[in-house]
Amino acid sequence: MAEFYSKKDLLFQLFENQNCLELVTFPYFTDHSEETFKLVLDAAEQISVNSLYPIFKEMDRNEPQLIDGKIRIHPKMKSIISQFGEDGWIQAIFSYEEGGQQLPWTIHLCAGFIMQAANYSASVFPFLTTGAANLIRTFGSKELIDRFTPNMYSGKWQGTMALTEPDAGSSLSDLTTTAFPTEKEGVFHIKGQKIYISAGDHDACENIIHLMLARIQGAPAGTKGISLFVVPKNRENGMLNDVLTQGIYHKMGYKGAPIAHLMIGSNEGCEGYLVGEPNQGLKYMFQMMNEARLGVGMNAVAIATAAYHSSLSYAKERPQGRKLTEKDLNKPQVPIIEHADVKRMLLFQKSVTEGALALLVYCGILSDKISKEENAQKKKEMHLLLDLLTPIAKSYPSEMGVQSTSAAVQILGGAGYTTDFPVEQYYREARIHPIHEGTTGIHGLDLLGRKVLLEDGLGWKLLQKEIQKTIQESQDVENLCELVKAFEEKLKKFNHGAAQLLFKMNQGPEKFLADASLFLEACGILTVGWMWLKQAVTAQKALEKGNPDQDFYFGKLETARYFMEYEMIKIEGLLPRFHSNSYPTIDMNKNWF
Amino acid sequence: MAEFYSKKDLLFQLFENQNCLELVTFPYFTDHSEETFKLVLDAAEQISVNSLYPIFKEMDRNEPQLIDGKIRIHPKMKSIISQFGEDGWIQAIFSYEEGGQQLPWTIHLCAGFIMQAANYSASVFPFLTTGAANLIRTFGSKELIDRFTPNMYSGKWQGTMALTEPDAGSSLSDLTTTAFPTEKEGVFHIKGQKIYISAGDHDACENIIHLMLARIQGAPAGTKGISLFVVPKNRENGMLNDVLTQGIYHKMGYKGAPIAHLMIGSNEGCEGYLVGEPNQGLKYMFQMMNEARLGVGMNAVAIATAAYHSSLSYAKERPQGRKLTEKDLNKPQVPIIEHADVKRMLLFQKSVTEGALALLVYCGILSDKISKEENAQKKKEMHLLLDLLTPIAKSYPSEMGVQSTSAAVQILGGAGYTTDFPVEQYYREARIHPIHEGTTGIHGLDLLGRKVLLEDGLGWKLLQKEIQKTIQESQDVENLCELVKAFEEKLKKFNHGAAQLLFKMNQGPEKFLADASLFLEACGILTVGWMWLKQAVTAQKALEKGNPDQDFYFGKLETARYFMEYEMIKIEGLLPRFHSNSYPTIDMNKNWF
Repeated sequence: MAEFYSKKDLLFQLFENQNCLELVTFPYFTDHSEETFKLVLDAAEQISVNSLYPIFKEMDRNEPQLIDGKIRIHPKMKSIISQFGEDGWIQAIFSYEEGGQQLPWTIHLCAGFIMQAANYSASVFPFLTTGAANLIRTFGSKELIDRFTPNMYSGKWQGTMALTEPDAGSSLSDLTTTAFPTEKEGVFHIKGQKIYISAGDHDACENIIHLMLARIQGAPAGTKGISLFVVPKNRENGMLNDVLTQGIYHKMGYKGAPIAHLMIGSNEGCEGYLVGEPNQGLKYMFQMMNEARLGVGMNAVAIATAAYHSSLSYAKERPQGRKLTEKDLNKPQVPIIEHADVKRMLLFQKSVTEGALALLVYCGILSDKISKEENAQKKKEMHLLLDLLTPIAKSYPSEMGVQSTSAAVQILGGAGYTTDFPVEQYYREARIHPIHEGTTGIHGLDLLGRKVLLEDGLGWKLLQKEIQKTIQESQDVENLCELVKAFEEKLKKFNHGAAQLLFKMNQGPEKFLADASLFLEACGILTVGWMWLKQAVTAQKALEKGNPDQDFYFGKLETARYFMEYEMIKIEGLLPRFHSNSYPTIDMNKNWF
Repeated sequence: MAEFYSKKDLLFQLFENQNCLELVTFPYFTDHSEETFKLVLDAAEQISVNSLYPIFKEMDRNEPQLIDGKIRIHPKMKSIISQFGEDGWIQAIFSYEEGGQQLPWTIHLCAGFIMQAANYSASVFPFLTTGAANLIRTFGSKELIDRFTPNMYSGKWQGTMALTEPDAGSSLSDLTTTAFPTEKEGVFHIKGQKIYISAGDHDACENIIHLMLARIQGAPAGTKGISLFVVPKNRENGMLNDVLTQGIYHKMGYKGAPIAHLMIGSNEGCEGYLVGEPNQGLKYMFQMMNEARLGVGMNAVAIATAAYHSSLSYAKERPQGRKLTEKDLNKPQVPIIEHADVKRMLLFQKSVTEGALALLVYCGILSDKISKEENAQKKKEMHLLLDLLTPIAKSYPSEMGVQSTSAAVQILGGAGYTTDFPVEQYYREARIHPIHEGTTGIHGLDLLGRKVLLEDGLGWKLLQKEIQKTIQESQDVENLCELVKAFEEKLKKFNHGAAQLLFKMNQGPEKFLADASLFLEACGILTVGWMWLKQAVTAQKALEKGNPDQDFYFGKLETARYFMEYEMIKIEGLLPRFHSNSYPTIDMNKNWF
């Protein structure tokens, strides 16, 4: 059994708390079943246990190095990436015609969860290639598809997303990498530089295929002038394509994955191949964005899950102190899991990781349904709901991952601060997620400034409807009365606060959006609270049906109670901001710092 | 000018917001003045800028190693520790007769603040020696004092505190290291092991003097049977004293300081010298505990301060994005300090670091007054107040240090996650403080289970009285009406919640103390809120007097407003726990996880 996640909980989320088998009613997924899904998850566990977890520490201690212009990564990654290719992980979600398995993205996401919990750095390589290949197959010409994707699917070539530049990170619209047309249609000379490119160069693959954003010479400023290109490191004939690895970033965590600084066309020798239409690059990227962002949410949950299980084992074994009611010092010490404050830190971790996992599975299923749904109205509604949930499902796990791995360190105390235990590594690795794939601040603006307002708030209304459904369902179940009452009370307060906040729109974007990050935070707590209500309903039903695994379901019920009692109340610490008409963060002058 | 702290703010805290010169009215401090205090702080800045800060990164990258049974530390530390000795830092607070400068501890604490902000790892060596020497000089015989302290004062010998054992960390009463009487009075054979001993062995000093807790053979169980010993690594004649360095801990941060695992007397050759009376060891230690704990609070503030200034410089320089009201993409990007959400993260850092610094200066002055006060009643009252404030002043900065350095990383974004900038190191270093010198959980129990209740809550009443004094004072100052109103409203709510919590005492210690950590958290916010009210009063008065440094004082006022609007409201997210009669952290069964 893997020690870094709970298979039982993952299966509970997929098959019991939510019904991922709904998906097999779509023709595209019709060959799948509970059995095939479980086989995929077993395979993910197998590669995780056998190959990824054993080098989890090693990859941190021996980070990639840039030697003679080439990044060298952990020697075992070559065979691991090959295996990812051989086992079909890279194109698993694509169609049979493309050599894929028509696997729902949800299952792929959950397989990824297992791998990320085992070894986050090692897990990123195939997922980056999948993302890059997905852009080529969706928007590229047949020629580009045939030329690039087969070697990507096999794991021979690495795919990347090359977006960020020195002066264009959060403000992607300011990118300046330029594409100059050549005589050949669709072929451009590219010139510029890209930074923070994950897997942007390494020696475990024969070629690196960058899906790169650049401006065609003369294109309009801003987001409307950005195009998407395939820019390989090597051309077919073995010729180099003038993509130089200028540097490697050394990082606090997530060290096993190489992050490169690339110079493109500095010797005027870089060819790039236009994907789809000119100036549509950002639109193309954004069509993959929900999945990419949910993916980051899942990375964060995975790391926090591994940290939770690590601290849980420790807490069960480590004797220290006695119960507060025990005054006899000759009695042996008790395992620290007996102390309420340690249980509080464990419940915090359990509640945020399992709650966020529930939310991500929910979003995954929604995403799969959207892509296969034929009813336009239904599709549109689901899309709006997923658009709304995405910044939440990216940011809540990311922010809580930081706090949750910190709680894991705290449970181990001094031991947790040493490199003898893995929790300090999880703590370092978790810190990347509130930053990449859009910072929490950016997602706050996206949620409040865009997603909530789309189509007159339709997505927002749909979310409320979904929440009400769960409340409705919970009323048919015994013993949940207190829990539902607590949730509804907070929901009511939250909705009142949100309405107040929306009034601020009249005061212009600066005031309206000043506390967008806090609004995002509150939405995260509320949404995950909803997920806990959902899990409690499922657990209570299982107990009523006489399911013998009482410990598991009692654990779900008690954790739901914890969430209402300890996490939902944090909303009350945020609400005053939504009512307030005082704006110190706007009024503060930069010279006053 | 040093870039890792604000001298202006430190002087404001000492001389303007609080009046540390009050101390020179005590005969012991009578030779001191504003000038001597400032000279001391200047000297601290000098050694920090010239010697400590330049090797801040290096010490992290080249951590101490255990080679042939001896720990090797950064080669520059030898001359730095010598300089600490030569400059008189180690015994600065001791009397003239002891070669000291009769410096108030407050000023020593603030000098330490500067050094810790420059390089936390390098700063710990002299402070550990001071602590150890302080125990010998206070409780030891003249013989012990003469034998050990001179070489400690000169920096030739290192002092340590050797408390923790493998099975006795948070539960110190379970320690088992044993002292066997010998024929010589006061001389014992010691046998046992100690872990996590800071500066427990290194090659920059000629000897290591451990102040070690152990049980004299046959002593009663628990805290009442613990004695204090001086256990040197080497005896005078150059003979080894059978203290073996069994291991070195590699840590997530704070790497420059060696933390040792020691085997004592494994070859039956370890002599230890009893300090004071038998079985009084823990009592002696605890008499130094307030200062040690405030010291840790200050370490945390120092690291967070350095991170704040680092992220502030970055935010002022880094262009990214435009104001939300600016739609013209051809306009240049603005420095990120223009964005409200970035200002929010900067204000968070500024408010918690400067607020906690104010609290620690307050506690420092209180501690100095206590030690020199001759009126018994006054002394007792001040002692109760300081006892109450100590767990808060240790834990609030420690917990906020983690969050605050995290905000610094977030401001730098991807850059902050790389080792190119110091913020990731601050983030790693800050994580130790909620753990050492008593975990946050332990301080929660200490505050609610002990300090609040002492002498029928007299300390608590004194705190309330002090807070009311500041409120009173604020009412004579213009423009603070809104601020005071906001503070008073939260204070009222908090006091109501605290009263509810106290009622739970009837339900037994487990329920009463289940949320002690959250009570501690709320007390931290409240107390630092009070410190912000105090600073606002001082700032407003300075402005009224026409002080020309308007930026500084406007900054104080706006940050006070931020604290009321963004931090004090978090109390409302904690209060429901104080009223609640639902205890999921108690009810959760360990098998349900």
